[in-house]
Amino acid sequence: MTTVSIVNVTSYTGSELLRLLAQHPDFVVTSVTGRSTVGKRLEEVFPYLRAGVPALEGRRPAIDPALVITEEPAQTDLAFVCLPHAAAAEAVVKLLERGTKVVDLSADFRLRDVATYEEWYKHTHPAPALLESAVYGLCETYRDQIPNATLVANPGCHTTTSILGLSPAFAAGIINPDIIIDSKTGISGGGRNPSPTYHFPEADEDVSAYGLSGHRHMPEIAQELTAVAAAHGHPFEGDLRITFVPHLMPMTRGILATCYADLKSDGNGKLPTTAEIRSLYEHYYANEPFVHVVDQPPHTKWTYGSNHCFIYPIVDQRARRLIVVSCLDNLVKGASGQALQNANLLYGLPETTGLSSLGVHP
Amino acid sequence: MTTVSIVNVTSYTGSELLRLLAQHPDFVVTSVTGRSTVGKRLEEVFPYLRAGVPALEGRRPAIDPALVITEEPAQTDLAFVCLPHAAAAEAVVKLLERGTKVVDLSADFRLRDVATYEEWYKHTHPAPALLESAVYGLCETYRDQIPNATLVANPGCHTTTSILGLSPAFAAGIINPDIIIDSKTGISGGGRNPSPTYHFPEADEDVSAYGLSGHRHMPEIAQELTAVAAAHGHPFEGDLRITFVPHLMPMTRGILATCYADLKSDGNGKLPTTAEIRSLYEHYYANEPFVHVVDQPPHTKWTYGSNHCFIYPIVDQRARRLIVVSCLDNLVKGASGQALQNANLLYGLPETTGLSSLGVHP
Amino acid sequence: MTTVSIVNVTSYTGSELLRLLAQHPDFVVTSVTGRSTVGKRLEEVFPYLRAGVPALEGRRPAIDPALVITEEPAQTDLAFVCLPHAAAAEAVVKLLERGTKVVDLSADFRLRDVATYEEWYKHTHPAPALLESAVYGLCETYRDQIPNATLVANPGCHTTTSILGLSPAFAAGIINPDIIIDSKTGISGGGRNPSPTYHFPEADEDVSAYGLSGHRHMPEIAQELTAVAAAHGHPFEGDLRITFVPHLMPMTRGILATCYADLKSDGNGKLPTTAEIRSLYEHYYANEPFVHVVDQPPHTKWTYGSNHCFIYPIVDQRARRLIVVSCLDNLVKGASGQALQNANLLYGLPETTGLSSLGVHP
Amino acid sequence: MTTVSIVNVTSYTGSELLRLLAQHPDFVVTSVTGRSTVGKRLEEVFPYLRAGVPALEGRRPAIDPALVITEEPAQTDLAFVCLPHAAAAEAVVKLLERGTKVVDLSADFRLRDVATYEEWYKHTHPAPALLESAVYGLCETYRDQIPNATLVANPGCHTTTSILGLSPAFAAGIINPDIIIDSKTGISGGGRNPSPTYHFPEADEDVSAYGLSGHRHMPEIAQELTAVAAAHGHPFEGDLRITFVPHLMPMTRGILATCYADLKSDGNGKLPTTAEIRSLYEHYYANEPFVHVVDQPPHTKWTYGSNHCFIYPIVDQRARRLIVVSCLDNLVKGASGQALQNANLLYGLPETTGLSSLGVHP
Repeated sequence: MTTVSIVNVTSYTGSELLRLLAQHPDFVVTSVTGRSTVGKRLEEVFPYLRAGVPALEGRRPAIDPALVITEEPAQTDLAFVCLPHAAAAEAVVKLLERGTKVVDLSADFRLRDVATYEEWYKHTHPAPALLESAVYGLCETYRDQIPNATLVANPGCHTTTSILGLSPAFAAGIINPDIIIDSKTGISGGGRNPSPTYHFPEADEDVSAYGLSGHRHMPEIAQELTAVAAAHGHPFEGDLRITFVPHLMPMTRGILATCYADLKSDGNGKLPTTAEIRSLYEHYYANEPFVHVVDQPPHTKWTYGSNHCFIYPIVDQRARRLIVVSCLDNLVKGASGQALQNANLLYGLPETTGLSSLGVHP
Repeated sequence: MTTVSIVNVTSYTGSELLRLLAQHPDFVVTSVTGRSTVGKRLEEVFPYLRAGVPALEGRRPAIDPALVITEEPAQTDLAFVCLPHAAAAEAVVKLLERGTKVVDLSADFRLRDVATYEEWYKHTHPAPALLESAVYGLCETYRDQIPNATLVANPGCHTTTSILGLSPAFAAGIINPDIIIDSKTGISGGGRNPSPTYHFPEADEDVSAYGLSGHRHMPEIAQELTAVAAAHGHPFEGDLRITFVPHLMPMTRGILATCYADLKSDGNGKLPTTAEIRSLYEHYYANEPFVHVVDQPPHTKWTYGSNHCFIYPIVDQRARRLIVVSCLDNLVKGASGQALQNANLLYGLPETTGLSSLGVHP
Repeated sequence: MTTVSIVNVTSYTGSELLRLLAQHPDFVVTSVTGRSTVGKRLEEVFPYLRAGVPALEGRRPAIDPALVITEEPAQTDLAFVCLPHAAAAEAVVKLLERGTKVVDLSADFRLRDVATYEEWYKHTHPAPALLESAVYGLCETYRDQIPNATLVANPGCHTTTSILGLSPAFAAGIINPDIIIDSKTGISGGGRNPSPTYHFPEADEDVSAYGLSGHRHMPEIAQELTAVAAAHGHPFEGDLRITFVPHLMPMTRGILATCYADLKSDGNGKLPTTAEIRSLYEHYYANEPFVHVVDQPPHTKWTYGSNHCFIYPIVDQRARRLIVVSCLDNLVKGASGQALQNANLLYGLPETTGLSSLGVHP
Repeated sequence: MTTVSIVNVTSYTGSELLRLLAQHPDFVVTSVTGRSTVGKRLEEVFPYLRAGVPALEGRRPAIDPALVITEEPAQTDLAFVCLPHAAAAEAVVKLLERGTKVVDLSADFRLRDVATYEEWYKHTHPAPALLESAVYGLCETYRDQIPNATLVANPGCHTTTSILGLSPAFAAGIINPDIIIDSKTGISGGGRNPSPTYHFPEADEDVSAYGLSGHRHMPEIAQELTAVAAAHGHPFEGDLRITFVPHLMPMTRGILATCYADLKSDGNGKLPTTAEIRSLYEHYYANEPFVHVVDQPPHTKWTYGSNHCFIYPIVDQRARRLIVVSCLDNLVKGASGQALQNANLLYGLPETTGLSSLGVHP
């Protein structure tokens, strides 16, 4: 039995971890922290937990709804850190010092370059020394390194969707390093704190773009796509030219990225066909339990509550572009589900443990 | 391993059974039927099934996404019948004849009185001889009889919500048999066939009442509440006076019934308090894994995708009434989840097998 | 030209007044107040006002998007007060002292009895002396008194829906004074301030009841239905026995009340028919421009953005009850539209001035 | 008084015309046609019309809710044709022959080149001879030609949004003719016929892309942007390279296009700034009553039910791209509102007649 703490359990990524861990046979949540809710029981903050969590396979339930929220985490084997950036790094340092393995859901350890971090997050990095040892927690790319890590930097939701959508094309060297990502996210991506933007009467029946002058997920996407291209023998010169625009959709969960890139042609000016590219994508993800290449445009609702990602590549022959549509549940594969996938790798468990459910549809 | 067929798998109750059975360790779906989709593979009709279903505990997966939809069910141990009424009864007769146990999700075997059935469903009952042996599949009430049944009549969604909400009060004899049930349902309750009423632009941002001249779930509610009162020693004279009005809500899943009843007072004209009634309710449902009495008004979203039901009773001292708010997911505890709960009972399995997940929240 | 101020324009009832007044040929908004937004121009707070407001019929536009929000209202002929209760009363006193006519959208002057007000609003009434002269602004009932008023107490949204739905029945003396009102409202009824309850991910795809231990609109409904019954020669003895339960729906606008009452039978035990009651309702509202008796269950979406109310009465012969479904847009006929209707009456204008648009459908 | 017919009034563009015309002082609807609804009164098909339409300015109301739907239009001065393509062209021919002016909301006369039409619409054009005289009804571009037309080809919804968003940039010659348009539309754009894609439980809480192998609005966009560039002295060589991907959003109304284009730099490699481009846009639309350049990302909800379009251009300095976000209500400025704007021009009325209302917000 592995003991687990959830730091800042009252965030949406924290409560989603509770939901997922309730089905996990090996991890037991023994410590949860919060800020304004310190001293309350989990079931007071999340009344639906009164449904209770059953014991699986003869051991104690993975979660006790009566667990009391504390300010500081108790000693556990593993911690999921669901704090905002900067606060997260401080907590991570303390946890690592006491020997706890950490999956950090914040942005603090995702960017390898301190300067880039400080440019985008506008403050001094609290623990730059850890950047080198932190492993970027995109399991599909870093599956080999994660088991040996003590700190996993769990990717962002826009990031995961986009990188999974474009990695096979960059790995195969079939597109130019000049891309546009138009990403559409459900509102839970904005977190659990009420604000005018997320007030129901304002957000309902509304679509808008945000982050147009630059969104923090962009350098993260650039870093990883550059790495994928290089790792597969198709490095490009200079920086990736990337425009990334996130949009807010009137729904709770789900993220869908539409990615556009110039296709390279072969020596005869011939473009690859959709069938060829789909085959290339299927091969790339052939053994992935959570990434699925499909032959029709996917729907975010296919992924509701699940850890699955669906990807649909298609060639726009007229404009000589590759279009890739990629979607997943922003709180699962885009956050807490992926965090649990990382935790499974950290503890040598099958990657799908506790994550095998299908999306809730309709 | 128990083999299972889903008759009319292309209904929402059928596809929901697929989702739930994918997590079930003992049942394996070996036959699925449809009408217009005969000859297609499951994953063609439900593309999200391409995510695949993992093998649990070393046995074959509960569902094969490549299973081909047939017109008639193959021989299986158990069948879930998801056909509309009348068509369901005909299928049930055939299945029982070949020795298959049946959980019927239609209304055909819910009403014990043929005349009542024929009054409300406007056609001759196709198999009245089966009415006597059919067991009403509300596990909380008929848990003792279900294991020995060969035909279980799975209750309706409005019905389950209302009966669970009012049973403790009728069992305790604290209310008069004169009730109003104002029920609010998500749109998946209307099924998978498109129609103007359920067309997104019409149903979105809209609330309306329907069935005002009489809804078929009403006699079912009356039958069961009358039975509960009698079984607990508080039979009432004459018919239950009941007004039941369903409403359509702009959401996919969830049903919430607000139930109103006159409270009886004691010899001194004193009414029971909310605390006394809550205690009575908690006692009534003390051992139920899926029914939870809560101390704040419940939200349908607490139940999203889960088999749980939350109930909140409160006394309106001013108007001398009992108000009970009861909610659940219409496709799970209101249909397919309850069907699986019944199937577990039929096969001597723990009632919660495959049904232990929490609601997806937010 | 009549000058108008909107006190607390940054509320939803305030901004809705802006939208409606933009189409009004006689009123010109010359003063708007706010709290945290003092010093900003209207178009800064409501960017969609940059669309501009055209001049109608050769006069200046009714609204200037560049109007600056102030803390105190300037001198105007008329003021709409959109403050919360208590704060509203204080503002009203000052406005009346300077000779401004007031339509108050708060609850401060709706209840005629100070004790009832103080019981439900839990504070001392700031201006009890004004209660006598204030006129309750339900135009359909008080059309004769409103033109001579200086202070109109604009009814609440649940209240308007329910009273319009039940008034004809009480006026005709056909029901017993024992009613249940199950009201369903869109989320804009909760105002423009973000809070966890109205946070999109929580409120979306969710239905819940609230105010179960007593909602402030209840005494208002009781007061007015009692008055209607008495005014039409069918006073009842004692208090109206009323249970009122509001519910929150996952939509922005719209309110639908389902009202239940015992029908009286005639000397021979015969109940009125639905046709008789519909005829009675049609007669009652025959000359109303905004209240429409319909022959099928109405939809809140029929009223989106309009000042119309649709009412559908039906007899439940089995349970001997009258059911009335009534719906409207909570921000228009349930608030700002009705306020404008009152203002039209105050200034001798046709009641429909600026209010003639149909609902936006779909 | 100008008499008007609406051909296929039972479409969403038809019913939206009814709503808008109800506020119009000069047009009177004297004929409406349908298919399956022939013989019914308007108010039977659209029950919310029972609210009635008031007489404006002492003349008869613009719409009579009791008007009976016929198979063929009666003789009128003007007709709005709301039929699907091909059927529309046939109706247009007949109407023109009898001297009726026509605003055609279908795609039949939008493309000037017959071959392009036949390539995209897969059938022989029913009336190619009319293509030359038809005027493309984008008022902002063809304001001078529309008044003299007898046939106006009303633009599509995606088209209007995109063209308005990109025209100033092409007119100024500041971008290369290589663009990506990622368009997001509400579901009413799919029309009034129910289908699985638009079935509430499927479309709710879902985002998906469609038309990825080529959408018919694309050649229309290409035609008009090419024309704008040429008309303003910045023609480009060869075809516009354009990728257009529409997406379905879980909301009823609203369309938002995010447009991406390479910015040209000046001789010194310097890009224009956002301020410079916004100024250029503001100048381009300075006198437009319905097109507004804003300084923050616009929301589709700002436009709900109104004829307004909001446009936000911004420079992505890092990637050297222009991003333009453009939004409007697909049923108003994207269809019926623009049709009415065209009709106003045809009859020498102020372009804003009947179209002056603000969006319904929230």
